[in-house]
Amino acid sequence: MLLVLASLLVAWPVAAEDGHELWLRYLPLPSAQAQAYRQQLGGVDAPADTPVQRAARDELVRGLQGLLGATAAGAAAVGQPIVQVGTPASSPRIAALHLPLQDLGEEGYLIRHLQQGGQGGIVVAANSDVGTLHGVFHLLRLVQTTQPLADVDLRQSPKIQRRVLNHWDNLDRSVERGYAGQSLWDWQKLPGWLDPRYTDYARANASIGINGTVLNNVNANALSLTPMYLEKAAALASVMRPYGIRVYLSARFSAPIEIGGLPTADPLDPAVQRWWKDKVDEIYRYIPDFGGLLVKANSEGQPGPQDYGRSHAAGANMLADALAPHDGIVMWRAFVYSHETSPDRAKQAYDEFVPLDGSFRDNVLVQVKNGAIDFQPREPFHPLFGAMPKTPLMMEFQITKEYLGFATHLAYLGPMYEETLRADTYVQGKGSTVARVVDGSLQKSRLTGMAGVANIGSDRNWSGSQFDQANWYAFGRLAWDPMDDAGRIAEEWLRMTFSNDPAFVAPALAMMMRSHEAVVDYMTPLGLAHLMGRSHHYGPAPWDAGSERPDWDPVYYHRAGADGIGFDRSAGGSDAVGQYAAPLARQYGNLATVPEQYLLWFHHVRWDHRMASGRTLWDELVIRYGHGVDEVAAMRGTWDGLAAYVDPERHREVAAFLAIQQDEAQWWRDACVAYFQSLSQRPLPAGQAPPAHPLSYYQSLSFPFAPGI
Amino acid sequence: MLLVLASLLVAWPVAAEDGHELWLRYLPLPSAQAQAYRQQLGGVDAPADTPVQRAARDELVRGLQGLLGATAAGAAAVGQPIVQVGTPASSPRIAALHLPLQDLGEEGYLIRHLQQGGQGGIVVAANSDVGTLHGVFHLLRLVQTTQPLADVDLRQSPKIQRRVLNHWDNLDRSVERGYAGQSLWDWQKLPGWLDPRYTDYARANASIGINGTVLNNVNANALSLTPMYLEKAAALASVMRPYGIRVYLSARFSAPIEIGGLPTADPLDPAVQRWWKDKVDEIYRYIPDFGGLLVKANSEGQPGPQDYGRSHAAGANMLADALAPHDGIVMWRAFVYSHETSPDRAKQAYDEFVPLDGSFRDNVLVQVKNGAIDFQPREPFHPLFGAMPKTPLMMEFQITKEYLGFATHLAYLGPMYEETLRADTYVQGKGSTVARVVDGSLQKSRLTGMAGVANIGSDRNWSGSQFDQANWYAFGRLAWDPMDDAGRIAEEWLRMTFSNDPAFVAPALAMMMRSHEAVVDYMTPLGLAHLMGRSHHYGPAPWDAGSERPDWDPVYYHRAGADGIGFDRSAGGSDAVGQYAAPLARQYGNLATVPEQYLLWFHHVRWDHRMASGRTLWDELVIRYGHGVDEVAAMRGTWDGLAAYVDPERHREVAAFLAIQQDEAQWWRDACVAYFQSLSQRPLPAGQAPPAHPLSYYQSLSFPFAPGI
Repeated sequence: MLLVLASLLVAWPVAAEDGHELWLRYLPLPSAQAQAYRQQLGGVDAPADTPVQRAARDELVRGLQGLLGATAAGAAAVGQPIVQVGTPASSPRIAALHLPLQDLGEEGYLIRHLQQGGQGGIVVAANSDVGTLHGVFHLLRLVQTTQPLADVDLRQSPKIQRRVLNHWDNLDRSVERGYAGQSLWDWQKLPGWLDPRYTDYARANASIGINGTVLNNVNANALSLTPMYLEKAAALASVMRPYGIRVYLSARFSAPIEIGGLPTADPLDPAVQRWWKDKVDEIYRYIPDFGGLLVKANSEGQPGPQDYGRSHAAGANMLADALAPHDGIVMWRAFVYSHETSPDRAKQAYDEFVPLDGSFRDNVLVQVKNGAIDFQPREPFHPLFGAMPKTPLMMEFQITKEYLGFATHLAYLGPMYEETLRADTYVQGKGSTVARVVDGSLQKSRLTGMAGVANIGSDRNWSGSQFDQANWYAFGRLAWDPMDDAGRIAEEWLRMTFSNDPAFVAPALAMMMRSHEAVVDYMTPLGLAHLMGRSHHYGPAPWDAGSERPDWDPVYYHRAGADGIGFDRSAGGSDAVGQYAAPLARQYGNLATVPEQYLLWFHHVRWDHRMASGRTLWDELVIRYGHGVDEVAAMRGTWDGLAAYVDPERHREVAAFLAIQQDEAQWWRDACVAYFQSLSQRPLPAGQAPPAHPLSYYQSLSFPFAPGI
Repeated sequence: MLLVLASLLVAWPVAAEDGHELWLRYLPLPSAQAQAYRQQLGGVDAPADTPVQRAARDELVRGLQGLLGATAAGAAAVGQPIVQVGTPASSPRIAALHLPLQDLGEEGYLIRHLQQGGQGGIVVAANSDVGTLHGVFHLLRLVQTTQPLADVDLRQSPKIQRRVLNHWDNLDRSVERGYAGQSLWDWQKLPGWLDPRYTDYARANASIGINGTVLNNVNANALSLTPMYLEKAAALASVMRPYGIRVYLSARFSAPIEIGGLPTADPLDPAVQRWWKDKVDEIYRYIPDFGGLLVKANSEGQPGPQDYGRSHAAGANMLADALAPHDGIVMWRAFVYSHETSPDRAKQAYDEFVPLDGSFRDNVLVQVKNGAIDFQPREPFHPLFGAMPKTPLMMEFQITKEYLGFATHLAYLGPMYEETLRADTYVQGKGSTVARVVDGSLQKSRLTGMAGVANIGSDRNWSGSQFDQANWYAFGRLAWDPMDDAGRIAEEWLRMTFSNDPAFVAPALAMMMRSHEAVVDYMTPLGLAHLMGRSHHYGPAPWDAGSERPDWDPVYYHRAGADGIGFDRSAGGSDAVGQYAAPLARQYGNLATVPEQYLLWFHHVRWDHRMASGRTLWDELVIRYGHGVDEVAAMRGTWDGLAAYVDPERHREVAAFLAIQQDEAQWWRDACVAYFQSLSQRPLPAGQAPPAHPLSYYQSLSFPFAPGI
């Protein structure tokens, strides 16, 4: 075959699309659109005297040049509309506009179209440089998603103060529950080598409003607080600082013993208090804008104040006192459960923390997971929300998909976050949503925060899969505004990440919005939870029993037997429903009124219980499992149909992952149906295929090298 | 500041240079050169009926389009000179040329300029598709390095049959002694997801002539041989196959017990033999062109035939018998040392293996490290080379820099490999080089091989640093031709990887060629070895003693005391010199004739011994240490001066790494000088600065999270 070289000219692009650019791709818009924007964005007038100002200016120029093309500036001349960026302090021209900035706060901004004289154009103004940076990213987002600018006039401020990623990253660069390669932090080469990815990480976070990052695992190693590692953390902080992102660290409660040489870590011991004070002072010498400490104490084997007969409040307050002079905060996790297995683990955090309400220092946030067990595909909101009116509660969502199929299952978590945030606690009557607890508006909290357990690693695509980037994105947007809409966020992300073409966006969005429910269905439908394999959490193992703690076993949670299935948390059972406000306790506690999505969470139900569909519980359960698998098949079909709108590299990757997901969804369905049928002893409903293998096959599988442990 | 967008037009390249393209960048040549090449390479005539043919054709088109630019084909028309690629079987036009292909063997090729009629151009011909693939890469290399093609007429065949990478990659994706991130093999997502990097890995290896890869660590997990992992290995093999690369696996000797359920792994047990035969048959069902098994047995705790009182030969032969029907081979490592600590570990492999010479099956290669200890910065060649005339010996080099500063030290290993390969064993008189043992020409070996312990991982730049790519490259080229020249190879690599500009190449080449000796000087000058920190092998710890095995301790190796330093391996000592042929035994065994670079390897020498320089040993030692540090400072200076020739991203990374290297070289020098001075009790020579810290400081450092363990 004779090939003349020109005939293959477009075959080899300079760089394959691989997702590394995230939602900040800034690819050229279609020429008509670019031309229209160039009429409004012919130049950039932005100060560049500080690192934050330079970050904002550079991002804006980079974005507009990418989006509007190399000829953008051809039309720019004095008198042409431009973008003016700045604060009254940084820009005399902004000051002269006398814009209404008062209510925007420290991080907010406004974007407005100006039509005054020949200058006109767009103004991005704020009270601080960081505010302008957020505004610049918003303006770029408008252009990326091809929104009209002619009448733009918007104001935004974050509803939550601390919008923080939690990296469960270890010093050996492994990531607990990480499915995206190694930790981004290359401790070995820090501080000498600042990988450019650190800057891109900061850019990406700033673009979605995240303003803090906890660098190390909550299962912390005390060495993170030694000078060798503080120097490395300080180097990372220097990269984050121009993007308005503060560094935090997880602290091991027993650090005074392990690296301080003290005989105790008792928080009431003056030597221990002194040690922490000195240590915190030392941290601030390395990192003057250090954010604070995150602590997992007396949970899953971690040391804590209870080792010395002291309360969580005593432990948190000791650290808070050390941090207070520097305006640092403590984020104290409420994910605790006692050494002794409880009759209902779901109740323990509430029981331990509610009595402490009012006893925490002003600079302590109690960080509460969205649900009372542990990041299951679906959980009712944690009953602590609303139950500690005198204590600011920080939401902890998990972005990494520990229980949702790791990297290869497409599960957009926006709807899951939204479901929790919009849940009504009823603690001050109707409308007392979790979002209003978290943003502080309900109970007038002085501190507010939201944490997301990061899904970020060294993988080229950052998050382990293309679509997992959307979960990072959605977390950031919801931390900025917890009443933002998961569908709106998904559409925005799709348009920036893939394409503005409506023929792509509509089906891709529908696929994303159904994806989380699909996972719930093929893993843990109808309020089931914690059916995954022990330790690694990969794949189904509802039969698992006999581990060192019963509350680590699936059988503890589903309680299936010949009679039925589910955990009785009603008043007649563990009475976990009693931890919710009365209207909810009534609704959840009654088999007739509990939402079916929480049915088996709150009730042990007979196999022949009649569901809303008219089917028995058994039939409904099997049908839900099958429906989950069918949904994945449908997602594959949708994605196959979108090949024309996506670069071949990313399309191929997503398609391959969906094929893996379908196989594993089938595995989940088959294994769970086989196991539960061994207990229910009932036939499958008509049309439902029997599992591909006998139960013993599924029970024989083992995965000693599943990632993320 | 008002910026008109056009003014920043070149500031944001589409994709930053990050080393990911390795030496296959194919960037456009300067237009005059491109124009000249287009006269000779106006089109490509290549068959594309098989996967290998398509790989060759696609690579050639990709390369020429990149190098010669989009307009390359503008001039192409019938009658214009083109590249003809093929074998007599694949291309009637190649067949019609009646080229002298007979002696090229299976993998060789020729490249010739043809001037016949109007057609003319370049021909790349071979006996097999894989041969043409190698030829295509060679042709591209000529263009990349701007060599003239007018009179090109070259023939190449590999001198060694099995040119194999050894990945010390574990199933959890960690890499033993890996400093480039995680394993490239994402076992969790295999076989469902074939990362495009697997293809790029295959391309890169094919481009330098590597034709095999052992996927898993020699410290093997038996699960690698189970169907679940064989299916994954088969998927990788399917990616490698079009590039002429065969997959091999490391086998755990006790696999019949661990995954076979047998009570023993005794190689003389018929059930064990049967199990391996069945297992090998099964492997070949998954991977029809499987290469064979690599085994580390009875070494560092690994199981092996000696557990049953059998010899290494008995173990290797059992596997060889299972593999023989499939033309598979066994690579049996000679890196063994017994459970009991020997008076001289350097002697053990020789003592164990020489008596077995002649007792291995025809399809067994004994794989021998370049030196008798363990990949030290410098070792004399392993005395086994030449000492087993009836057994083919495979060279094992380490590409990953376990003992040479990990990723951040610039150390080009070409000269180190070359030093070993060109060393004369004298076993058949002068000229009996190690290279001739390895390539089989000296002792008429039926099988030949060279293994390189890979330095490849998930890092974007593949090897952990830009310059570590050169070590991968050099290994491949020397495996193809063990008498190739390390300097020539380095220049070729530099030109393809960075720039053809002589103002860049000359100083960068000089820097590379001095870099290995610099590391030797600041770590282990004058024949010292094994002075690094225990277990992780990071940084200096010559004081380390008291570990579970004395032969894991630096003090075992340097034997420094008040009297002097060095390991007496002369006839009066351990007599390791007696393992070398007589002329060498005499030379090495005599303090007056031993090369100073091996002085302390073979002799325990008084501190006041007079060196060739006229200085005492003590003074010389300190000066060598300082010289190593000075060399790194000079390398930094060189690199700083080359900024104009290198993209800023890679220049910045190399510069940052050199700064780390200089700090760590100083640390090595200071710690070693402080320690040895505590023994020698002698003043530093004039002009040599005292260590920055007291010895106790260096001894206090610990690195629990150094990578690669």
